[in-house]
Order: sequence, then C-alpha cells, then structure tokens
Amino acid sequence: MDFVSLFFIDFVKQLQSPTLAFLIGGMIIAALGSELVIPEAICSIIVFMLLTKIGLTGGIAIRNSNLAAMIFPMIFAVITGITIVFIARYTLAKLPKVKTVDAIATGGLFGAVSGSTMAAALTVLDEQNMAYEAWAGALYPFMDIPALVTAIVVANIYINKKKRKEAAYSIGHESFSEQLVTAGNYPDQKDYPSSRQEYLSQQKGDTDNRVKIWPIIEESLRGPALSAMLLGLALGLFTQPESVYKSFYDPAFRGLLSILMLVMGMEAWSRVGELRKVAQWYVVYSVIAPFVHGLIAFGLGMIAHQVAGFSMGGVVVLAVIAASSSDISGPPTLRAGIPSANPSAYIGASTAIGTPVAIGLCIPFFLGLAQALGG
Amino acid sequence: MDFVSLFFIDFVKQLQSPTLAFLIGGMIIAALGSELVIPEAICSIIVFMLLTKIGLTGGIAIRNSNLAAMIFPMIFAVITGITIVFIARYTLAKLPKVKTVDAIATGGLFGAVSGSTMAAALTVLDEQNMAYEAWAGALYPFMDIPALVTAIVVANIYINKKKRKEAAYSIGHESFSEQLVTAGNYPDQKDYPSSRQEYLSQQKGDTDNRVKIWPIIEESLRGPALSAMLLGLALGLFTQPESVYKSFYDPAFRGLLSILMLVMGMEAWSRVGELRKVAQWYVVYSVIAPFVHGLIAFGLGMIAHQVAGFSMGGVVVLAVIAASSSDISGPPTLRAGIPSANPSAYIGASTAIGTPVAIGLCIPFFLGLAQALGG
Amino acid sequence: MDFVSLFFIDFVKQLQSPTLAFLIGGMIIAALGSELVIPEAICSIIVFMLLTKIGLTGGIAIRNSNLAAMIFPMIFAVITGITIVFIARYTLAKLPKVKTVDAIATGGLFGAVSGSTMAAALTVLDEQNMAYEAWAGALYPFMDIPALVTAIVVANIYINKKKRKEAAYSIGHESFSEQLVTAGNYPDQKDYPSSRQEYLSQQKGDTDNRVKIWPIIEESLRGPALSAMLLGLALGLFTQPESVYKSFYDPAFRGLLSILMLVMGMEAWSRVGELRKVAQWYVVYSVIAPFVHGLIAFGLGMIAHQVAGFSMGGVVVLAVIAASSSDISGPPTLRAGIPSANPSAYIGASTAIGTPVAIGLCIPFFLGLAQALGG
Repeated sequence: MDFVSLFFIDFVKQLQSPTLAFLIGGMIIAALGSELVIPEAICSIIVFMLLTKIGLTGGIAIRNSNLAAMIFPMIFAVITGITIVFIARYTLAKLPKVKTVDAIATGGLFGAVSGSTMAAALTVLDEQNMAYEAWAGALYPFMDIPALVTAIVVANIYINKKKRKEAAYSIGHESFSEQLVTAGNYPDQKDYPSSRQEYLSQQKGDTDNRVKIWPIIEESLRGPALSAMLLGLALGLFTQPESVYKSFYDPAFRGLLSILMLVMGMEAWSRVGELRKVAQWYVVYSVIAPFVHGLIAFGLGMIAHQVAGFSMGGVVVLAVIAASSSDISGPPTLRAGIPSANPSAYIGASTAIGTPVAIGLCIPFFLGLAQALGG
Repeated sequence: MDFVSLFFIDFVKQLQSPTLAFLIGGMIIAALGSELVIPEAICSIIVFMLLTKIGLTGGIAIRNSNLAAMIFPMIFAVITGITIVFIARYTLAKLPKVKTVDAIATGGLFGAVSGSTMAAALTVLDEQNMAYEAWAGALYPFMDIPALVTAIVVANIYINKKKRKEAAYSIGHESFSEQLVTAGNYPDQKDYPSSRQEYLSQQKGDTDNRVKIWPIIEESLRGPALSAMLLGLALGLFTQPESVYKSFYDPAFRGLLSILMLVMGMEAWSRVGELRKVAQWYVVYSVIAPFVHGLIAFGLGMIAHQVAGFSMGGVVVLAVIAASSSDISGPPTLRAGIPSANPSAYIGASTAIGTPVAIGLCIPFFLGLAQALGG
Repeated sequence: MDFVSLFFIDFVKQLQSPTLAFLIGGMIIAALGSELVIPEAICSIIVFMLLTKIGLTGGIAIRNSNLAAMIFPMIFAVITGITIVFIARYTLAKLPKVKTVDAIATGGLFGAVSGSTMAAALTVLDEQNMAYEAWAGALYPFMDIPALVTAIVVANIYINKKKRKEAAYSIGHESFSEQLVTAGNYPDQKDYPSSRQEYLSQQKGDTDNRVKIWPIIEESLRGPALSAMLLGLALGLFTQPESVYKSFYDPAFRGLLSILMLVMGMEAWSRVGELRKVAQWYVVYSVIAPFVHGLIAFGLGMIAHQVAGFSMGGVVVLAVIAASSSDISGPPTLRAGIPSANPSAYIGASTAIGTPVAIGLCIPFFLGLAQALGG
C-alpha cells in the first residue's frame, strides 16, 4: 500500500482507540447537553497519578539507561519550545485585531506541554505496539519551561519598548487619555500577590523594567503537574518504587486517562463559546499551530533518529508534546508573568481547539507519519 | 431438596455476598452513629464508573450479538415500566391520607430504574455463577424512561382535570381560599428554570395544559447516570474499548460497588426519619411494591425465556430492575415534571425502604426463584 | 555481620521502600514550595479503603484462627496504651513552660494509634517478606481506646483537683483575676455540642465533676477510621468478602498508601511552624517518645513471642502502633474530652514530628531490631 492509504487507515483505526474515543465521546455528550459532571477532586487526583506514573517510568528508565542518548532529544525539546513562542510573535501577533501581548502569551501556552496530551500519546503508542524510550516523558519540562520563560521575557521586552516610546512621545503631548492607555497595559497587576510581582524588578524605575527569569522557572516547577512528574522522576531515580508502580500506577494509567479524556472533551466543548469574544484568527492559529509545531519537532526528532538512534516512537512523543498546549500549569504562570494579556484569548484557544486538535488529530497524524516513514 | 428449602438456603447464602453485606453493614454502622462519611465526589465517580462499565459491557455485547433476541425483553421492560405507574395510580393513590400526585410520582420513581441496584444484581449473579445476556444492562433505559414519562403525563392529566372541575365550581363560588388551593398545586414551579417549564405548554391558557413528552425523555437521557451508561454503550458499539475495559472498568467494578452499597445503606438509614412526615401507607407500599413489580417482570421474562430463549439470569435482571426504584436520575426529573408532588414522600419511600428492600431482599428472592425454577 | 551493621544496612534499604520514599518525597516537595494538593475527598476515601482492608484482613484471619493466640498481644496493647499516658503525665508535664493538661493530651495522642502508620508498617513488613499474624491490625483499638480514655480521665482528675485547691484558696482571697484563671481552664467548652459535654457529669456541681468513660469509648468507636476498621472486621468475620477483598481492597492497598504517605509528608512539613508557638520541649518529646513507647511495646511483644509464639513481625506491628500517634480519630476526641488543652501543642507535636519519626525512623528501627534479633 502507498503512503497515503497507510496513513488514512491508521488514522481511522486510532480514532477507535479508547483514548481518543473517550475524548470525542466527551465532546459529543457535552454537545448533547449531558448533565454528567466528573468532580474536580477526581480530575486532580487523576492528573497527579498520570504524571507521577510518567515520572516514575522516566526515573526508573533513566536509572537503567544511557544518559548520552537523551542529550539530542533534550536540546531539540528546548529549541522547539523557544521557537514556538517566536512563531506566534511574528505570525499571530501581526494579524489584524490581535493584540501583541495576547499573541505572545498564546505562543507561550502552545509551546508549553500538556501532561494529559502526552499521557494520551504514550497510551496510543502502547496500543499500537510502537516502541519508544521509557524516558521520553521526561522531555516534558525541557520544552515546557523554556517556552513559558521565553513568552514572559519576550512579552515584557515588548511592553517596555512600547512604554518607552509612549513616554518619549508623552513628554510633549501629555494628556489624560494617554496615561490611561499606558496604565491599561497592567490592568490586573495590583491583584497579584507580591511573590508573583517578583517577575518584574521595578525598584529601579520604569526604564529598567528587567524580567527575572529564575522566579518563572521556579513557579513552573512548583505547579501541580510538573511537581508530580518531578516527584515521580526523583522517586524512580533514587528509590525502589517498582512494587507500587507495577501494582498501582501502571495498571490504573489507561483507565484514569480515559476519564480525563472525557473531561477534556466536555471542557473543550464548553469553552468554544469563549472564542467568540476574541479575534477569529485565534481559531485559525489553534488549528494550524499544533501541526506546524509538531512538524518542527518531528523534523528535529528525525535528526536525532538518524544521528543518535532516537526511536521513531520517541520522535512521535517529541512531536506530540510540541503539538500540545498546556492546560494545567501554563495558564497561572502566564497570568502572573504577563498580567496584561487576556486569558480568554490564550486559554480559550488552547482548551477549546488546541488540545482536542493535538489529541484527536495530531496524535494519529504523527503516529501515522512515523509508521509510514519507519514501517 | 424441595423448592422452599432450596430457596431459603440460597437466600441466606446471598446475604453473605459482599454486595449485600456492605449494604447491611452501612445500615448497621449508620444506626450505631458512625461518623464515617464517603465524600460526595467519590460517590459521583463510582456511579459514573459503574454505569459506564455496564454500558461498555452492553455495547460490546450488542456489537457481537443478535439484536432480535433483545426485542422481547425490551418490549417487556417498557410494559413493566408503564404498568408500575398505573398500579400506584389505582392502589397507593386510593389509600387514606395519600395525595394522588404524590402517589403517581412515587409510582414513577419505583418504575424508574436504579443503576446501583442493577449493578448489585449483575454482581450477585456473577458471584452465583448464573449466566445472563451481557446486554441485559442495556434494558435499563427501556423501563426507566417510559415509567418517568408515564408518571409525569398521568400526574398532569389528573392535575388538569382537577383544575377544570375547580374552575367550573369556582365560577359561582369564587373565594380567596379556593384560589389559594389551586395555586397550591404549583408551589415550586416558579423556582424552576425555563427549560424545565417546557414540560407544560402553558402559552395557550390553563385549559390546554398539555404535557410535552420529548423534553421529559431528553432530560432523562441527560441525567448523569443514564448519560454515563449511554456513553459506555456507544463507545462499546462503535469503538474498541476492550483494553481499557479489561484493565480498568471491569476489575474495579465489584470493589467500587461495595463502597456504593455501604453509602446506600447509610443513606437508607438516615432517610428513615423522613417517612414519619408522610402517610404510613408509603411504608407498606415501599415494602410490597418491589416484590409485586419484580414478579410482573419475572412473569413477562419467563414468557421471553420460553418463547425467545431469554436466559434465566436475564429474567432475574429484568425482575430486579423492575423491583428497583430510581435514586439518582429519577428524583430531579420528577421534581421538574410534577412540581406539586412532595419529594419527602417519593424520595423517602424509595431511598429509605424501596432500595434496601430491592437490593437486600428482592435480589436474593428472584435469584432463588430462578434457581429453584431453572435448576 | 554484626548486629549494628545488619541494622544499618536494613535501615538504609527501607528508606528506599516506596512507602517511606513517598513520605520523604512529600516533605521535600512541601519544603520546595510545590503547589501540589491532594484533594480532601481523596484522602478520606484512601483512609476508608486502607482501614477497611486492614479490618477485612483481620476479620478473615480471626475467622480462621485460634483466638487464644490473640490474648497476650491484646493485653499488652492495652497496657502500653495506658502506660504511655502516664509517661507523659510524669515526664513531659514536669518540664518548664509545659502546661499539665497539654502534656496529658499529648500523651493521649501519642498513645492512640495512627491507622496510616500501621498500614505503612504492614506494607514494609510485606516488602521485607517478614511474616506477621494477619489479625495483627486488629490490635489497633486495644491500644487506641485505652490511651484516649486514660488521657481524658487523668486530665479531668487533675483539673478537678486544681479547681478544688483554687476554690479553697479563693474563699479568703477572691479576686477578679483568679476567676479568670479558673475560667481559662475551659475556654472552648461552650462551643462544643451538648453530646460532647456528656463526658463531664456536671449536674451535681463542680466538686463532683466525674468523667463518664463510656461516651469516650463510644466516640472513639464512631470515628471514621475506627468505624471503617471495625466494619471491615465484622464483614470479614461474618460474611464472605473474599472476592471483593482480592479484586479490590488488597491490590489497591500499597498504591493508595503511597498517596497517603505523600500527603502526610506534606502535612508534616506544613505543621512544623505550629511548633514554634509552644514550648520547645514538645519537639524533644516528639522525637524521643515514639522510640520509648515502641521499645516498651517491643519488650512486651518479645514476652508474647517467647510465651505464646507471637511472631517477630507481630512484635514489630505492636511496637509501631505504640510508636505511632493518632492523626485522624484522636484529635477530635481529645478536643471534646479535654477542652482546656491547647490543640496546637498536641496536634503540632504529633503531625509535624511524631508521625514522620514513627514512619520514617521507627518502622525501619524496629524492623531492623527484629531482623537482627530474630534472624
């Protein structure tokens, strides 16, 4: 069979996999007005268990494996995370009716990683019997944190430049309305606790409004998703968690993921309305960006495949985490780091379109691509 | 051994089954004043998982089986659901101190199905190695929805008739107190959202107070219990959920059910007090009705057994869902559809007596009956 | 190898066991400021499942075993529970800046048993393949209840004596400030519901302020932890829960425990601050007491080992439940029974230091001791 038919057969087959089927099922029952609610507490514990399991898998794998093999994929994960933000900065931000800070924040969220999407990809790879490095899940923070840091830094550089221009301009033309515009760049800032204000070192006056990078990294690492994964990683590396891993975290993984996929499907449907409040270009971006980001990572992954023997399954994981957009840890970090950006824009784009596209379309797409290329 | 001894031995043996033992345990610890609380969020997710599992089982079974075999049991399920409401209308409603609308609503709730009771029956059948059709759980909506629709329609016909009589009477005798009585039929109606008001098409004036059937069906289907089951059914029919079914939903079933049985036992005990507020005939009805309803369904099931080869285990399932009364999806539908009925009457009767009788007495009774007849 | 080296090798090996590793992991991520939160509802259901499982194990074991073998360990559990309170009464209470009632309440909490710590001990014993009686978990209430009852009785005897002295003194020297001091012994008492006030039979006046013992026992038995365990015990004794035990409660045990250990680690870290508000002697007591209490129970257990063939694993269980301090059921009972004691003192000492010491140090210590002695 030729490439295209192989690809389409795989694609349709994968939509029947429980992981994707539950996502689509969630969207359908939400569309039909179901009153089914999965309690918040259940979602939290599922995310904890999925990411702890991914961390444990990674930690146990790294303990028994060659660290050198991880270097290329890690570097490529960092490059992809940073690149994604600049893509948004020079495409989405240039579109009509799109505010530049909103576009940069959206880029940051699409560069950051969704643990649930990654869990879905790992499960679909298992279902399709496609091998990948057990430590592949540990690539998560290497793309997630650089993307968030870059977005916050780029946004603040932009805001400072704009302010300096306005300040220069307003020396001669000071007016009440312009002061309002300037102030309008920080509408929510007063509401954030002082620890979050640390991102901006404001003590030396407006012109030296430099961004501190370490607090952003720290806040990312402290988020519930990443800290569960890093805890699992550390326990896998330094202790003997095999008994609890085999009796609990591993067998429960697929089932818990199916519930989370259902919730994400329902959530995606319920957020569609928010997109009406922002420029329609966000919809276009949210559909195209996951494929573009995934293809960049897929290309870089193929280099690692040729040069360093990175598995084709690992290439798919790298592509999917690039295609995914953060749903848990990203939004609060961005809100604190770029308070002037509009959360409806970036959260709506990510949850309502980016995530279902990444899970429902990009996972089958990149898996099909890898099977067609590698098979 | 003769029929009666066989029956009693089975009955006592089944009370020791974990499913029934946890129900009785829940009643006992509640009676002893235990402060044990199973959080609401846990109960919700358990109900979701049990009904998704029953749906998945049904969907996978229907995909691989002969639809024709389902026709008789389905028709009998519909007949039983409708009959139960009319039984309440012409027995319970005629008893002293029982309001007619309350009696009809109670009939609706006892005709509707409890997913937890059905789950208990399926588990006890498994424990006793009695075979039943895997799609038997899919009979649920075929009894549940007709019973609720019939109750709401019958209640509203009764209310309209009564109103017309009163209107005719009050033309000559208009008085302030009678207006109060008439208004009293709809005490809560203003509190319900407009979507629920749709049940009654009131725009044409009081005399054309017809009941719309479709919104009742829609609301039933949207309830959390039925929509979880239908989701499972659809996923079982159209996708390949076997991996997640075998690794997660199936093995967790019995254990989760044991927790839910405990909760239902505690809940039954705590609701006993509510029954003191209503006529004592509700107690009599709640004890006898599950057996009467179950026997009707058992008789119809035996016809399907003789004519169409419906299994004896399937006959037990049909009898138990007839004996059961709805605890999750039924009450809100009835509240919206018959706002003038007193929830203390129907919920108290169902939760405090109907459900424990159905699970603790009817399951062993009908199982014993089937074993004695079929063995 | 000699005793000491054997002991240290075991000790380090056990810190790598998943149970202890998750406890330490929880403390570390809390110290690093992780925003990970395990929802309250999840903690409740985990405690329920762990203690129901321990109860079921015990019940099934007692059904199949010789009751006579339990007599010695049970008596020793009661003796240990009572002794621990008197140790606190005559050591901690004598230290500078320590209030006597606070010290007695702390002794009660350290004499009472932590179900989670016991669950951790049973799991570590399994991991190390050290045999213990399956009914060992059933020793819990035999130490827990006597300790709480003794603490409340001793505290109230002390308060009454003090009051009588003050009353005698104040006849001649009545002053406003002294009345305040006397009243200060019962600062919270008005806030407790009347059912809890029953502990003190106040109707006969202040001088006959006798403590009723039965309500304290009743409240202990009704607490969520003990009633889950007793429910499991009864179900194990009188019904056939083996199917649900093997398919659900037993396999989930270790995994659920790992989550609870994580929560207890985080909780311990977050409570460290509370200790700053009370005398530093509580810190010294909380570190030393678990070892002293455990050694007393270990010694008594060794007698049962010699005399009645109690297993070495059973001796470890007895020592660990003596070393443990109550975290769920104890605090509310003590608050109601000794309202004048300061909860910051006893809860802070127990949660922040006593529990991590018992789990992280005493379990490896007593297990190492048993292996070195018995191996």
